[in-house]
Order: sequence, then structure tokens, then C-alpha cells
Amino acid sequence: MIVKNVVEKKKIAVLGVTGYTGMELMRLLLVHPGVEVVFASSERFKGQKLSAVHPHLLGLTELVCSALDISSIPEDTDLVFCALPHGKSMEVVPALLGRNFRVIDLSADFRLKDAGLYPQWYDRSHPCPELLEQAVYGLPELYREKIAGAKLVANPGCYPTGILLALAPFLAADLIGTEDIIIDAKSGVSGAGRSPRQPFHYPECNENFKAYRVATHQHTPEIEQELTSVYRTGKGAGRGPENGQSPVQILFTPHLAPMSRGILATIYASLHGECDERELLDRYRTFYSGELFVKVAEPPFLPETRWVRGTNFCSLSLCKDVRTGKLILISAIDNLVKGASGQAVQNMNIMCGWPEEIGLRNAALNP
Amino acid sequence: MIVKNVVEKKKIAVLGVTGYTGMELMRLLLVHPGVEVVFASSERFKGQKLSAVHPHLLGLTELVCSALDISSIPEDTDLVFCALPHGKSMEVVPALLGRNFRVIDLSADFRLKDAGLYPQWYDRSHPCPELLEQAVYGLPELYREKIAGAKLVANPGCYPTGILLALAPFLAADLIGTEDIIIDAKSGVSGAGRSPRQPFHYPECNENFKAYRVATHQHTPEIEQELTSVYRTGKGAGRGPENGQSPVQILFTPHLAPMSRGILATIYASLHGECDERELLDRYRTFYSGELFVKVAEPPFLPETRWVRGTNFCSLSLCKDVRTGKLILISAIDNLVKGASGQAVQNMNIMCGWPEEIGLRNAALNP
Amino acid sequence: MIVKNVVEKKKIAVLGVTGYTGMELMRLLLVHPGVEVVFASSERFKGQKLSAVHPHLLGLTELVCSALDISSIPEDTDLVFCALPHGKSMEVVPALLGRNFRVIDLSADFRLKDAGLYPQWYDRSHPCPELLEQAVYGLPELYREKIAGAKLVANPGCYPTGILLALAPFLAADLIGTEDIIIDAKSGVSGAGRSPRQPFHYPECNENFKAYRVATHQHTPEIEQELTSVYRTGKGAGRGPENGQSPVQILFTPHLAPMSRGILATIYASLHGECDERELLDRYRTFYSGELFVKVAEPPFLPETRWVRGTNFCSLSLCKDVRTGKLILISAIDNLVKGASGQAVQNMNIMCGWPEEIGLRNAALNP
Amino acid sequence: MIVKNVVEKKKIAVLGVTGYTGMELMRLLLVHPGVEVVFASSERFKGQKLSAVHPHLLGLTELVCSALDISSIPEDTDLVFCALPHGKSMEVVPALLGRNFRVIDLSADFRLKDAGLYPQWYDRSHPCPELLEQAVYGLPELYREKIAGAKLVANPGCYPTGILLALAPFLAADLIGTEDIIIDAKSGVSGAGRSPRQPFHYPECNENFKAYRVATHQHTPEIEQELTSVYRTGKGAGRGPENGQSPVQILFTPHLAPMSRGILATIYASLHGECDERELLDRYRTFYSGELFVKVAEPPFLPETRWVRGTNFCSLSLCKDVRTGKLILISAIDNLVKGASGQAVQNMNIMCGWPEEIGLRNAALNP
Repeated sequence: MIVKNVVEKKKIAVLGVTGYTGMELMRLLLVHPGVEVVFASSERFKGQKLSAVHPHLLGLTELVCSALDISSIPEDTDLVFCALPHGKSMEVVPALLGRNFRVIDLSADFRLKDAGLYPQWYDRSHPCPELLEQAVYGLPELYREKIAGAKLVANPGCYPTGILLALAPFLAADLIGTEDIIIDAKSGVSGAGRSPRQPFHYPECNENFKAYRVATHQHTPEIEQELTSVYRTGKGAGRGPENGQSPVQILFTPHLAPMSRGILATIYASLHGECDERELLDRYRTFYSGELFVKVAEPPFLPETRWVRGTNFCSLSLCKDVRTGKLILISAIDNLVKGASGQAVQNMNIMCGWPEEIGLRNAALNP
Repeated sequence: MIVKNVVEKKKIAVLGVTGYTGMELMRLLLVHPGVEVVFASSERFKGQKLSAVHPHLLGLTELVCSALDISSIPEDTDLVFCALPHGKSMEVVPALLGRNFRVIDLSADFRLKDAGLYPQWYDRSHPCPELLEQAVYGLPELYREKIAGAKLVANPGCYPTGILLALAPFLAADLIGTEDIIIDAKSGVSGAGRSPRQPFHYPECNENFKAYRVATHQHTPEIEQELTSVYRTGKGAGRGPENGQSPVQILFTPHLAPMSRGILATIYASLHGECDERELLDRYRTFYSGELFVKVAEPPFLPETRWVRGTNFCSLSLCKDVRTGKLILISAIDNLVKGASGQAVQNMNIMCGWPEEIGLRNAALNP
Repeated sequence: MIVKNVVEKKKIAVLGVTGYTGMELMRLLLVHPGVEVVFASSERFKGQKLSAVHPHLLGLTELVCSALDISSIPEDTDLVFCALPHGKSMEVVPALLGRNFRVIDLSADFRLKDAGLYPQWYDRSHPCPELLEQAVYGLPELYREKIAGAKLVANPGCYPTGILLALAPFLAADLIGTEDIIIDAKSGVSGAGRSPRQPFHYPECNENFKAYRVATHQHTPEIEQELTSVYRTGKGAGRGPENGQSPVQILFTPHLAPMSRGILATIYASLHGECDERELLDRYRTFYSGELFVKVAEPPFLPETRWVRGTNFCSLSLCKDVRTGKLILISAIDNLVKGASGQAVQNMNIMCGWPEEIGLRNAALNP
Repeated sequence: MIVKNVVEKKKIAVLGVTGYTGMELMRLLLVHPGVEVVFASSERFKGQKLSAVHPHLLGLTELVCSALDISSIPEDTDLVFCALPHGKSMEVVPALLGRNFRVIDLSADFRLKDAGLYPQWYDRSHPCPELLEQAVYGLPELYREKIAGAKLVANPGCYPTGILLALAPFLAADLIGTEDIIIDAKSGVSGAGRSPRQPFHYPECNENFKAYRVATHQHTPEIEQELTSVYRTGKGAGRGPENGQSPVQILFTPHLAPMSRGILATIYASLHGECDERELLDRYRTFYSGELFVKVAEPPFLPETRWVRGTNFCSLSLCKDVRTGKLILISAIDNLVKGASGQAVQNMNIMCGWPEEIGLRNAALNP
């Protein structure tokens, strides 16, 4: 059948291996043919076998959790995934870069270019603002080239990923208004992390639907930063400079849905000019032609979260409301894969010069 | 403790007793102290005991399902609930009125005043358009007086109920724009009815979230009709005539959430003039003061579907986005109670001259 | 319609009002026509309005949470529900009895007659073993007369309730073996209480099924105590003394199901003598004739948890396996109602001399 | 990193590609490095692209569904998976074998050796009983050698798989009773297939737990057949002949749990002789040493369905009840993977002489 000639495996460290994004990284890295995880940290479970913390990994890894001690990461480690809580990465990444490791950080700590936004949206000032410029925003469909050479990749947030992919083609081409975008997003509960808290206790989430942090969610400035950048530079649209300079402003309402995984974003925008639904869909297809992980749903289907469950895919589609003329964009991702750990692996593949889909090409677990 | 002097029980018929709204009517009517169900029809299960179809009613009723034969409804029946599928009520209601029964119809068949909308949104022309004018739209918080004397009440749709209650106070007072209202609503699966179909098969809904009938849902004209009416007449707002005459236009996107019951509607509107969040919340409280079934959530809480599960309550609240100036309204109802059968019982109470809360005053089943 | 002559309302105190059993007590007591809750304690939320802790009670009660200070319970309180955690009731109940209140305790603290079992199964010795004899086990279908006059009622555990009701008729009549009963029970997550913990975090429970505390669950001695009592005394069976004296021994395996409410117990027993399935079902019907809250499912239906959701009913049925001769008993309850707070209200009704179904006669919330 | 030298891909046909086992086969085969699916049939969707039926396969396959016409399967097809409904495979397999294809049948049609059992348990007589002897029961952990050379593999049922793996080590070694085994199993809803029917309509399954086909489920004879075979031959235990000749008899109760995937089986058996829990666990480890897909959970963990979700693993463990002396075995599988399509791929790997884990070595999708 097949002969595998393993030339060399990259050595990988994962910091924060027992939260959901750390777990999901392990799931993906364990089947990735190009890497070997040589170090995994967990302050809470240090000294324990990883499979004793996460029994579903039994038989698949013999790793033992280490303390979060940067100096104990092996010298020949090629790349470090930082899956620590927001605010914790800031403290650790400078030391990682100091040891000359390439870093993919899954927290929000290096996503915002403007250090002044951290106190406002994350309740703390940034200890190393000089790294913010250097960090590359890790959305491959927009920043592939920069990611390839980056020392520090700021892996996008779960909500921003699906939202940016949905809006980028139309902002880049200056086809929609920049001041009245409304984003109504719905997330599974794993987006809230693995620490048990009252609102995420099973009987409080099950059979319940709610909005939360309405118009105040911390992903708002991240989304606006990247939408503004796309709009001004016309990325991928062969246009750009002639777009306006005003920043893009959004209204963002997240909701909690009674499911473990998945984000569906429904986005409302006003259209410039005359485009029918078919032309708009074609714009999606053109913009993302050649992109493996962005799939435009075939009408009459619209994106559903089950179609991307457990995968790195983003499913996109749109409707034009003939009555109001408004454009409705819909995107679905798995918040833990394309919205976090899968995208991080995609970034790793790019940084290593490998095909992007290595270890990531699989069909959704459906049902 | 208590002495109950039963003076007289009203005699009730329920047509279509084995769908979800029929089942829910039975749940409510069986504990209602003022009524007795004397006739219940089910074409599919005629001749069978109702408790053999719905085992949870075992021991609570000895009713036997009858065929849908209008002439066999007992002469002394006081009121008929029509819980038949859309399109079926149209065929039956004229005969019910002909026998001089008062009727509460839970289908969409008598909700639209403009008969011309039926072919467009429901794929059929209306066989008795002359009844549309006579039918009273059964939203008690807006039409209580008319309902009291009605012969035919058109019980509102599930989506419209929560949406109208959220928007009415602001449209009546001409405080929000009438042309850019965006409604993003999320419903549990029971809203799709009880007939098994592929999209509602358990493994296809579980752990899934999706939009459907985007900008084409049949509740759109019903919502617009009633919003326009509220806007033009200034109902309950002490204003009215000076409001504009233009119709209210909405963009409505329904979604399917992996839960059995509940609708959460998130509504986006542009504000006229200067109002802060506190004043806007006060407007809700003033508009609905004295209304038992509309509750304004106490900040910092926002409506969640679990807080109204199994009840006739509508939970309302709002946020004003200080960044964009937009108003975000949120409402939660149980689609089978306030969104269908509970509201029908509330209408019955009004038609019978009883306190509205009889048989409906209970706390949510939470968790 | 109805004229209510309120003669007098009993005054009720609820200790521990913010856990699930306390919440459920409030749900039931708020619609109970014979009572008024005059005192509700919550150490964590003292000083806050109950509706600010449980928003679904907004508009239904103006109660403010008090500290757990026995001396501040009003003198004219008629009955106290103790919904405190296991181990906490022990400390409080003597003082309640000292103030001459009648007490219904929902914890396990007074269920076991043998004080020596507490260290073994609950990891603590009992501080007031002299009260164990005085406490009446609050399963009305077996101990109605004693409950009527009790000062202290030990409300049964959730698992024991459904299991005892399923087995009692056959043990009382000496029809099944006493040494090889196997009980395989499945519970919704609310049975684990309201405190957030890792195993009950939404994404860890959702789409998951597991056994826990296999053969070591603390309800084991409670079930054996009561089964032994039924077997030896032949309660309700007109038999008794001639039954054997050996204690009943069970093997009990609880499981956690991904749902909020409900317990289904599947019980395996060996049959003495020749009985066919029809005769066995008749024994159920005879034993529970006149019991409002125990319903024998009509074949071909077997109990399902949805048929009792939100109600005080226990649904029972059985199969006889013609191949092995074994008897399979199945019971379904709502763990928070018949398995906790509903049964407590049923006990209150008995203690007050009222019809047992007051405030408890309602159909399941289905779906 | 890696260089893949594809030597040759096997050509595969899948009959019945739009049911759950067919879908799951596609999910697995699309990432399997040794195969290419060249033919896929669906009577209902013939002529449509598979990705238009299953949108989650968009971009992963260009297959078009064919009619179920055996003659149109390409001549050079190496292996045919038959994922047709029970009763349909019987009609088709003879023709497949006639064309000299090797066949893995996922239905029950060739699992029972005794043709007389089909009328009793499947309501139809078998049209080609002569093939029953030739068919190899496809449980690799027991029949690996026979599978390697088989023309026709009868892939085991979902319930039997987890149950046989749990019991085999103890029956083979004659350590447990053969006449009083009780099996209480809990399955997710996908086990009922993809056709929408009332009991599997979302709101009827959600928040519900029930037993079904108690003591009459059609997997009973399959389980007994294989347990008896293991017992008599002492497979894998180095024992065998001295075991008794009596057939193994079980009592089997399946339940429906509100989840999409997963089976947990809880099995009760009486122990011969003196063995403590540790020795019994060691027996599991010994029996399954070298088996990649059978994992004994590390105490204190017991199997949970989430630990095998989406994988071909079976998680096993046990408890010995010190009070009753009974042995409690617990196994967890994903019903669609190890319980169906994953096991079928494992069988294919064996038949092709490949390592068994090709295409199947992945960690569970958890959460």
C-alpha cells in the first residue's frame, strides 16, 4: 500500500495541556505525521501521566505533565504551543522567545496591536507591548506569508475566526457598509473553557439559550482591528488603496447554545451597489479558491455546525434579502478546531513549510 | 385551608389533540379549575384513549379521541380550540362559527388581515377571507378588549409573540427606526411540530446549530402587520396619531437550537433621540406595568429560555450599545406556552371574563 | 367559575433555598393553595431577594434570603423543610425540634435507622442518633399513617424512591429472591446537586454516559433497610409474618445520563413460583390501587422519564423474560419531584391532614 | 518530514452510503491511505453527488451515488462494504460473491450460524442459509485469522461488540457462571438508524431515558452464539476443552440514552472461585495484551462513552462487589465506529494484510 519514509519529526512543546485547547492540540498532534510532542505542562497535574488526566489519550501517549518551567523545555524543541489562560501567556512568551523558540500562542495576549486596548477589554495592562507589533495574527487565509516566517503567532479567537472569514471578501472589495455591521453569534459551551463554574454546570446550560456580554465581549476589538485591516488593504481582492480609511465598526452579540462544540455566526450588512445572490456567492468562491479549509456551502444548504464538527473547516454561505436589500452572511466552525487548536496546527504546518492540510484533512464527525 | 365552591365549568373542545400544541393545551386545561374538556379530536388516533397516545396523561383524563367531525361536537360546548395544522383550520373554522361556537385558532390561518398574503407566504389562497377581518389577533397585552368579545381569536405565532412584545413599546412611542429592524431568533425543535422528518431526527439536531428559511420565514408578514399596527396607532403609549404612516419592515432570521422548548429573540434597532439604558428599561416597565405575563429581567440578568420553561411568561430586557448607539432587545418565551397553548388559555380566560392568570400562574421548571 | 374561600394558610420555612431541591420546593410551594413561605435561608445569598438569585421566580415571590439562623425562624411557623447538604441537617434539626417545629428533612441525615451506617457510608458519625428512631421514613405509599403524626420526616433519597416503589409489592408478598436483586439505575445530572464541579461541567456530561460509585453508592444501605422492612412486615400485602427474616441484599449501580432530570431504574430479580406477566402487572395495580402518584404504565408502554418530568408521579411496569424466567422491573421518576421536593410536599400534605395531591396534580412537561 | 510512496490503492465499493453506517464508512475511508472508494450506492439519492446529500463531505469527495445495481460495480473492485438495511443484504450478497468480490456486510444478515433463528428474531427466513457457515464473524479480537482469509465477513452488531469484548476473557477461562449473566446496555440514538420515526424525533428523545425491547432484542441470539463459542473453545485463554458444553444464556435489556453516539454496557455475572479485583483486571490486560483497540481503563476511571467517541476503541473495566461477590463489567464503544464502520475498516485492514490500525488510530473527539 504505502511506504512512509519518515525523514525527521519536529519536536513540539505544549504549555497548558489540560484545558480544552490543550486537549484538542494533543488530539491533533498525536496523529500528525510530522511532529512529536516532547514536553507538555500542567501546573495542576504536574507529575501525572497525561493519560491519567485525560483517559481518552490512554494508549496514545506516555507523556507526563511537567510544571510550567520554561527552562525545562528541551533545547531542541522546534515550536511551542502556548495554550495558557489569557493573561498568563503574556508572562511566559518573552522567556520562550528569549530561548529562541518559535511560538504559537492560543490566548488573546498578542492579538491586539494597540496595547491600550488590553486595559479596556481585558482588565490589565500589557507587560510586553513591544511584542505586539512583532506578533503575526494567525489567520492563514489572510496572513499566510507572514505566518511562514513568524517567530510569534497570535492564534485568532474562536468568534473572530468565523466572522473574519465571512466578512473579509466583501470588505476587501468595498462592497458593504463599514458602520452598520451586526454580528449575532452562537457558541457551544466548550468556548467558555474547562473550569467548572455555575453558568456552565450541566443542568444550567442544558435546554437553555441565552445572550451574554451583549455589545461588551472582549473579541470585539480583535474583530474590528482585523476587519479594518482587510478593508484598508483590500487583502486578496486586488483592490485596496481606493477603499476608505475609516475604521470598521461592529455590533457583536454572542450567545450560549446547549451544545459542546461549534460556532454559528449570522452577520447582517448593507450592500453597496447592485449584486444578486449568485454574484455574491461567486465572490466567496473566488476569494477562497484554492483554500482547503474554507468551503462555500452548495445551495440550498446553509452552514450548520455539525458539518464542521471536529474539523478545521469553515463553512460559509449567504443570502440576500430581496425585501430589505440586506446581506446575511453565515459561517460555521468548530470553535476548538478552526477556532483554536486546528488553526494553530495549520499555522504550524505553514511555519514548517509543510502542506497546510497535514494532519488536518478529515471529514466531520457527523452525527 | 381552602374551600372551593365550583360554580360552573365551561365545556371545551380541542381539535387536533395529538400534536405538540394540542398536547400542551391538554396539559394546561387538565389543571385549569374553570374548564372541562368534553371533546378532543385526532384523525390518526380516533377511537383510542388519549392516555394511550400520550402516556403522560394516564390517570389524568379518560378522554377518547374523536374523529374530526364538527357535527359531533356537543351542542353545549362553550369554546373550541383549533390546534390543527396550518391550512386545515381554514377548512373547519367556518363550520365551527356556523354552529355558534367561540373559537381560538392556534394555526396561522386567521392571523393575516390581507388575504393576498396567504398565497405568497403559505402557498394557498384563503377560502374564507371574509373571516379575516372578524378574527381578533390574540395577543392579550395589545388586544385584550377585543379578545374579550371575540367570536374568533387568531392565536399568534410563536416567533411573533416574543418579538412583538419586545418591540411594541418602542414602536408605539416612535422611538426606533421602522426600516432597519433586524430580528435574529433561535427556537427549540418542538417549534417544528411533532411529525418526524429528517432535519428533526434526534442525531441530526443534537449538537447542531443552524439558520433556516433566512429572510423567507412565513412569520415575517405576521410580525410586520402587527408592528405596523402598533406603530401607527401608538397602542398603549399615549401617542400614536403623530407617528408616521409608513409600514414597519423587518429582516427576520430564524435558527434551530438543540433543545426541545424555548425561543430567544435578539432584536437590533436604531434609536431616535437620546435615551440611556435605564430610561429604556423604564419604558418597558411602564408599558407592561400591570401585565402579569411580561416580566422585565432585573439587571444584570438578561432573559434566558430556562427562566420561562413551561410557563406563560415572556422575559424581556435590553442593552444600549454605547459604541454604535444601537438598541438590542432580548425576549425569551416558551414556544409551546406563551408562544402557543398558554397564550390560547390566556385568551380563553379573557373571553370567559376570568382573571387572566387562572391555570397559568406557575414558576418555570428550572432546571 | 370558582370561589375560593381561603380559611387559613400554613406558614412554612425552607432552609437551603438555593440548591436544586430548595429551588424545586419553592416552585411547588408558590402554587400550593394551602401554604405561605415565610422564611427562606441561604448562607451564600443572605440579604438578597430570592428572585435575584433565581430569576425564574421574579414576580412570584418577594422573599429575601435569610442567614441560616434557627432562632430567627418566626415563632408561628408550622413546618420547616430542611434542604441543606448532607451532614448539615444533622447539626440543625435538633434545634428545630427544640423549637417545636415539625420538620421534613430532604437530606440523608435521618433516613438510616442504624447510626453505625453513617461512618461507613457517609464518612461521619451521627451527632444525634437518638433522633433516628423517631424520624419517620417519608415514603407515603408505605408509611402514610406514621407520617401523618410525625414530628420529623426523613424524606427518601431520589434513587431509593423509584426503586422501593418498584420492588415493594413483590418483596411484601415474598414473590422474589432477597439475595440476588440487581439494580441498574440511570439519573439526570441535577441529582448531583447545584455546585459546579468538573464531572458535571456541561461539555463533560453532554454526549456522555457513565457508571459511577459502582457497588459503593451511599443509597445502598437506605434501599436495603427499607426493602428488608417491607419484606419482613409484608406491608400492604396482607402477608408479612410468614416471610423470612433474612435481610434483603442488593447490588446497586448508578449511572449518569446526559439530561437534567429523571431517574430510570431497571431492576432484575428472580421469581419464586409461577406467575405470568399479566398476573405480575395485576399485582402492581392491586398494591397501588388508590395511590394517585404511582401509575402502572399500560402495555405496550414502559416507563420513560419524560412521562413524569416535572411531576410527582412514579411510572412503573415490568417484563418477565420467558427465556431466563427473570423478572425485570422498571420505574421512572423525576428525581427532583417524587425523588425529592414533590414527595416532601406530599408528606407535608399528609402531615397537615390535606388531600395528598394538593399542589401536586399536574401533567408532565412533555416534550 | 515524510515522504509517502503510494504503491497501490485498493478499490472499494460501499453499498448504502446514505445511512449512518454508510456515512461513517465514508468518513473513515476518505482518510484511509490505502483505499479509494470507486462506487457508492444509494437508491434514494442515485444520480446525486454524495456531497449534495451529506454536505460535510463537500470538498472531500466527488463521488456520485449510483443505483444499487450489482452489475455496475467496477470489475476491478477489491472489496465491497454492504451497509444496507437488515434483510436487504441477504438479497444482494450472493450476487456480490458470485462476482468474486470480497464482502464485509454490516447488517445482521450473516451473523447467525443457525438459519432457524432468523424467522424467530428477524421475522423472515433466510434465502441463502448455505452462506451462513462460510461467513466469518468479524470480531478481530477473537477471529483475526479467519477474517484474514474470508470471502464474506459478517460485521458484528453494535451491542454485541462491546458486550463480547467485556465477557470473552472470563467465559474463555470459565471464571463466571453461564446461566445468570445480566446485560444492561445504553445506546445513543444513532443506533436506531437514520430514518426519521416518532420515537427518535428530537423532542421525544431529548431529556428522556427509556428501556426498549426488554428481553426481546434481536441482538440476543448473536450475543449468545458468540459467548457460547468463546466459552466452549476457550479462545485466547489457553484453556477451553475442559469448559462445559452448555450454551451461555443471557438476559439483555437495551436502553435509549439522549445522545447521538455511544454504547455503555453494564454486565452482571457471578464469579467462580476467589479472585480479587486486581487479579480480574490483570486478566483483562493479559487477554487483550497486544490489542490496540481494546483499552483497560486505569483505576479509578471506569469507561465513559466520551473517551471513545469517534474512535475504534473499546474501553473496558470492572468492579467486584465485595458485598454480594458479583462481578460488574463495564464496556464503552462508539456504536458507529467499533460498533459498526470502524470495525468494518479494521476487518478490511486484516483482509488486505495491512496493520490493523491503518486509518483508525486517532484520539476521541472529547469534548
